[in-house]
Amino acid sequence: MTMLDSINELWYLPRELVSDGFDQALTRLAQEIPMRIHHYPSGEQCWTWRIPEKWTCQAAYLETLGGKRLIDYADHPLHVVSYSLPFVGVVGRDELLEHLHVHPRLPDAIPFVFKYYERNWGLCCPQTLRDQLNDEQYRVVIRTHFEPGELKIGEVVIPGQSPQTFMLVAHLCHPAMVNDDLTGVVVGIEVAKALLRQAQEGDKPYYTYRLLILPETIGSVAYLSHHEHLIPDMAGGIFLEMLGNASPHALQHSFQPHSQADRCLSMSLQSIDLQSYTGAYRSVINNDERQFNAPGVRVPMLSLSRVEPPESPTRPYREYHSSADTPAIVSQERLEASRDLILGLINAWEHNQFVVNRFKGEIFCSGYGIWVDYRTNPEGHRRLFDIMERCDGEHTVADIATELQISFQAVWEVVQMLESKELVRLSRTPESTDPHR
Amino acid sequence: MTMLDSINELWYLPRELVSDGFDQALTRLAQEIPMRIHHYPSGEQCWTWRIPEKWTCQAAYLETLGGKRLIDYADHPLHVVSYSLPFVGVVGRDELLEHLHVHPRLPDAIPFVFKYYERNWGLCCPQTLRDQLNDEQYRVVIRTHFEPGELKIGEVVIPGQSPQTFMLVAHLCHPAMVNDDLTGVVVGIEVAKALLRQAQEGDKPYYTYRLLILPETIGSVAYLSHHEHLIPDMAGGIFLEMLGNASPHALQHSFQPHSQADRCLSMSLQSIDLQSYTGAYRSVINNDERQFNAPGVRVPMLSLSRVEPPESPTRPYREYHSSADTPAIVSQERLEASRDLILGLINAWEHNQFVVNRFKGEIFCSGYGIWVDYRTNPEGHRRLFDIMERCDGEHTVADIATELQISFQAVWEVVQMLESKELVRLSRTPESTDPHR
Amino acid sequence: MTMLDSINELWYLPRELVSDGFDQALTRLAQEIPMRIHHYPSGEQCWTWRIPEKWTCQAAYLETLGGKRLIDYADHPLHVVSYSLPFVGVVGRDELLEHLHVHPRLPDAIPFVFKYYERNWGLCCPQTLRDQLNDEQYRVVIRTHFEPGELKIGEVVIPGQSPQTFMLVAHLCHPAMVNDDLTGVVVGIEVAKALLRQAQEGDKPYYTYRLLILPETIGSVAYLSHHEHLIPDMAGGIFLEMLGNASPHALQHSFQPHSQADRCLSMSLQSIDLQSYTGAYRSVINNDERQFNAPGVRVPMLSLSRVEPPESPTRPYREYHSSADTPAIVSQERLEASRDLILGLINAWEHNQFVVNRFKGEIFCSGYGIWVDYRTNPEGHRRLFDIMERCDGEHTVADIATELQISFQAVWEVVQMLESKELVRLSRTPESTDPHR
Repeated sequence: MTMLDSINELWYLPRELVSDGFDQALTRLAQEIPMRIHHYPSGEQCWTWRIPEKWTCQAAYLETLGGKRLIDYADHPLHVVSYSLPFVGVVGRDELLEHLHVHPRLPDAIPFVFKYYERNWGLCCPQTLRDQLNDEQYRVVIRTHFEPGELKIGEVVIPGQSPQTFMLVAHLCHPAMVNDDLTGVVVGIEVAKALLRQAQEGDKPYYTYRLLILPETIGSVAYLSHHEHLIPDMAGGIFLEMLGNASPHALQHSFQPHSQADRCLSMSLQSIDLQSYTGAYRSVINNDERQFNAPGVRVPMLSLSRVEPPESPTRPYREYHSSADTPAIVSQERLEASRDLILGLINAWEHNQFVVNRFKGEIFCSGYGIWVDYRTNPEGHRRLFDIMERCDGEHTVADIATELQISFQAVWEVVQMLESKELVRLSRTPESTDPHR
Repeated sequence: MTMLDSINELWYLPRELVSDGFDQALTRLAQEIPMRIHHYPSGEQCWTWRIPEKWTCQAAYLETLGGKRLIDYADHPLHVVSYSLPFVGVVGRDELLEHLHVHPRLPDAIPFVFKYYERNWGLCCPQTLRDQLNDEQYRVVIRTHFEPGELKIGEVVIPGQSPQTFMLVAHLCHPAMVNDDLTGVVVGIEVAKALLRQAQEGDKPYYTYRLLILPETIGSVAYLSHHEHLIPDMAGGIFLEMLGNASPHALQHSFQPHSQADRCLSMSLQSIDLQSYTGAYRSVINNDERQFNAPGVRVPMLSLSRVEPPESPTRPYREYHSSADTPAIVSQERLEASRDLILGLINAWEHNQFVVNRFKGEIFCSGYGIWVDYRTNPEGHRRLFDIMERCDGEHTVADIATELQISFQAVWEVVQMLESKELVRLSRTPESTDPHR
Repeated sequence: MTMLDSINELWYLPRELVSDGFDQALTRLAQEIPMRIHHYPSGEQCWTWRIPEKWTCQAAYLETLGGKRLIDYADHPLHVVSYSLPFVGVVGRDELLEHLHVHPRLPDAIPFVFKYYERNWGLCCPQTLRDQLNDEQYRVVIRTHFEPGELKIGEVVIPGQSPQTFMLVAHLCHPAMVNDDLTGVVVGIEVAKALLRQAQEGDKPYYTYRLLILPETIGSVAYLSHHEHLIPDMAGGIFLEMLGNASPHALQHSFQPHSQADRCLSMSLQSIDLQSYTGAYRSVINNDERQFNAPGVRVPMLSLSRVEPPESPTRPYREYHSSADTPAIVSQERLEASRDLILGLINAWEHNQFVVNRFKGEIFCSGYGIWVDYRTNPEGHRRLFDIMERCDGEHTVADIATELQISFQAVWEVVQMLESKELVRLSRTPESTDPHR
């Protein structure tokens, strides 16, 4: 089953924070890859948060007093505000309009509106429809139901050689939408599948990887607060979302832009995808990476998404949080490109170690067959020596790339060649070789 | 008695380094507030300095040989150079002019000239008068007297909960002038009164405060060299001067611009007084703060004064060091504004602590009633999270303000709100909550 | 014997890496100054390198088939590629041209070409001659000889009070050329002579100085790999080369631009030679300093040479690596200026210590006769206080100069004056006097 197949199957489900729709999608995804499902009951305290109730919408519609149905949840799950209170009654036009939400930019689309913690009732419709509501009164029927339930989180673990962990996180709680958020989920699963396959083929990764599929924010808080013992081992991570649309990849830095995760991923990005760009923490898009970067957790968690450039008026993307976010705006090809990019970043991350020189002085390059003639290739000569002189047990590959402002891969290529000649070795911890230390 | 009343009573006294005029003024001020007077005898060694002798001028005048008196100390204390040697004799015009000082900018004013350590005789007069001296010879009479005395320092202590101390310092040794230096003294006393009052009302400050009223430079050296045991507890301070004229407030940084005192006071300033500005160490005005910032002392000591902007030709202010520095150029209103500004800075200083998160992850803002909607108030939302994510036991309020380049008060408002919800606590020492440390 | 005399005597010798010409020159130089000669046999492993064989050229020429000799090693040592393989035979024009090297910029000069580790045969001639080779075939005779020999290194030691060492290094292996490299050698010897003389006159330096005269690169590797125990004591150094031509002095920083050696030498340079300039590591010229700066050695080793400015098309200098590099382009006067500059830098280096205040607070300048009046000399006043307030046991003279961006000498002058008044003392290690530490 391709990623697009999964999307086509699951996108229209009313995947709410705690809901049958969410559970149904998660159960289906668990058939794709070995997944542990965590359950957290409604009302449970998670740090400063509380697990919300399960929410179900049986019916929701707007009628004229004459019984003409204008808006119907049966037509589209976005017609009702997520976690709307139930409401049945005849309301005046003005009161109705206060509860009837439209999209700020797309007049023909139904907006995605949620009121998880601000209890109220509400319906959503296109601006064009709202503009035609000229009757004095309308009849509103919202039959929603709040009840104790269980928040569910799917966790896929690829055990590594080390307990040090790299996190992959995506949320699944955006009903009847695709790019945000189902694309992050299916790409995350494909990445996990590839890592599992590599591990099964005997290429066990150094880092342990954990993919979490969860409802936004409260899911991350629920998981982290129940797994505090794992946090000190979380060395980095990426949040995944919006990976099917046609915008360039944007890598958003963590709260700690000098972390090894930040240096390694950002210096790797461009040589895998020339169109990509990077942005500061919280400058591109806000999602679960915030919980991981927050005080008391402080995991350097980046995020990857396809986002229009900062100056674009439709940023993050035109169909964002609307009924226009359908399978039509994503492509299997772009999903695969995102998967491959993430695997490329992870590949760099696995290789990012301290480079310890086994040589002293400069290497006798001619003797090792690695001489680059400065007369015929001055750039290559300079780069070889730029890198070589930083192999001192105090710099990681990412540190060298950052200092030289060249790609991680360019450094790695030289380091790997030096390693193959037994001129350097790689170490997970710094080991200075300066005799003056 | 208002500050202006004190000024009117004391300004005209011949307040010299060690002198009856100084003592008289200090004794009078000691009636305003409980004050300990320190006495240091002439000749005593203080670090590399020595306490000067007491100096008195009985009479000083310039006459034509015909007996016409042109300049007379009886008319104004500034007519004689402070610490001038005695001299009686008939001198040629050229020799006289070498000893007759005028103001560089104000032709009608008598300048303030002092020769504390370069022993010489001298008189001072307006440029206009000097220009009319066409006789070949003049008669000079300067009857001054040097004798062993005692340098006096007034010290007001407001005990705090902690021995950690904040210093307030002003000098009193500028004869017959007002803005420089009496305004700093009277404002300092009013600040001390307010702090004492607060303490008596049960609001004991965290820091101990010491206000010193002393002769410039040698007073600070005398005090510090006799109280070396107090220096390690001096956490910061402000020197006060020129607080009655119409220029904007200038806060001058200490030698250690990244100290907590520097960060806290500079980030507080603007939101208390929009017209104020800051300057680097020794870029605004030089006074006793130099002794506190100097090697072997290294107290981060700022200074506050009302000073014309750097490009002004009359900087620090037009009447500086002249007989034009009279009560006419200061106002009670401005003195009170300066007092209130200092109390505002001290208020920030008292609150400046490390902010330790009692939460982990992001706070459930809706649950605590502190949610700021990013759709309706994106700035407020961003600021709340900018501050919240730095509450990690490693940043003080001033550190957060400095990092975000917003006012101390803006940060404090949020921190206080979080504290009231028991989401953070304040600590005088860093306490990292990063589980990776 | 002047430096120019030495040059005239030795420059034309075929000084190859391991060769009789090199040994002959070194033996002659050892008569100038007490020198220890180190011997390293061909084939010996030195870190990643191996000592090359001794190379001799008995004869090398190019003839027409008719026997007309066009190029002859007997005419100039540069006519054969250094370390060329032997070759005798008739070759076609195209094949010949692949082995016949010319200078990239100078059509009338023979280039200096070496193939130490890329074994091949080759001749060198002027571009003008090469352009006239129109015959179909030519006869080549290259009678060179490879045999086991000994690489030689001359070492001059000036023992200091401390084992901490400053290195002076120059190479001697450029056959029949002068500015590069003989000038560095003769200037280095003159510097060593001056230091020895000072030491014999009872002015024993604090640092130990070692001057090395060696074949480029492999000489440094041979020495360092056999003296690893000395490396931790090597605190800095300068590589010397190209010191006779008419370009300005260029001081190239080490790999560690914040080292005391870098700070001290760079802040001293300009006040000794106004025309001089500085450049980043490896931005001016590449030589043996690379081995000293390399991983596992990490000595902050600068280099000094006379080099045209970066934008010059003939950089480093017009006659570089060619037969035009003769005694005609150097002058005794410039060699002496370079020697004096180096002695000036060493003088600063000797004086560069941590300045520990014996005073607290500001110094009573008038009392010590060092007062600079801010009214008549505001610059001098400011500088005195700028320096004084950094005398705190945490700053070296070079640190103060770097912070203030003034010359080392300007700071040293004030520090020396303060030391003569017993107001500061100098220390080879930091000793903070801040009572808050």
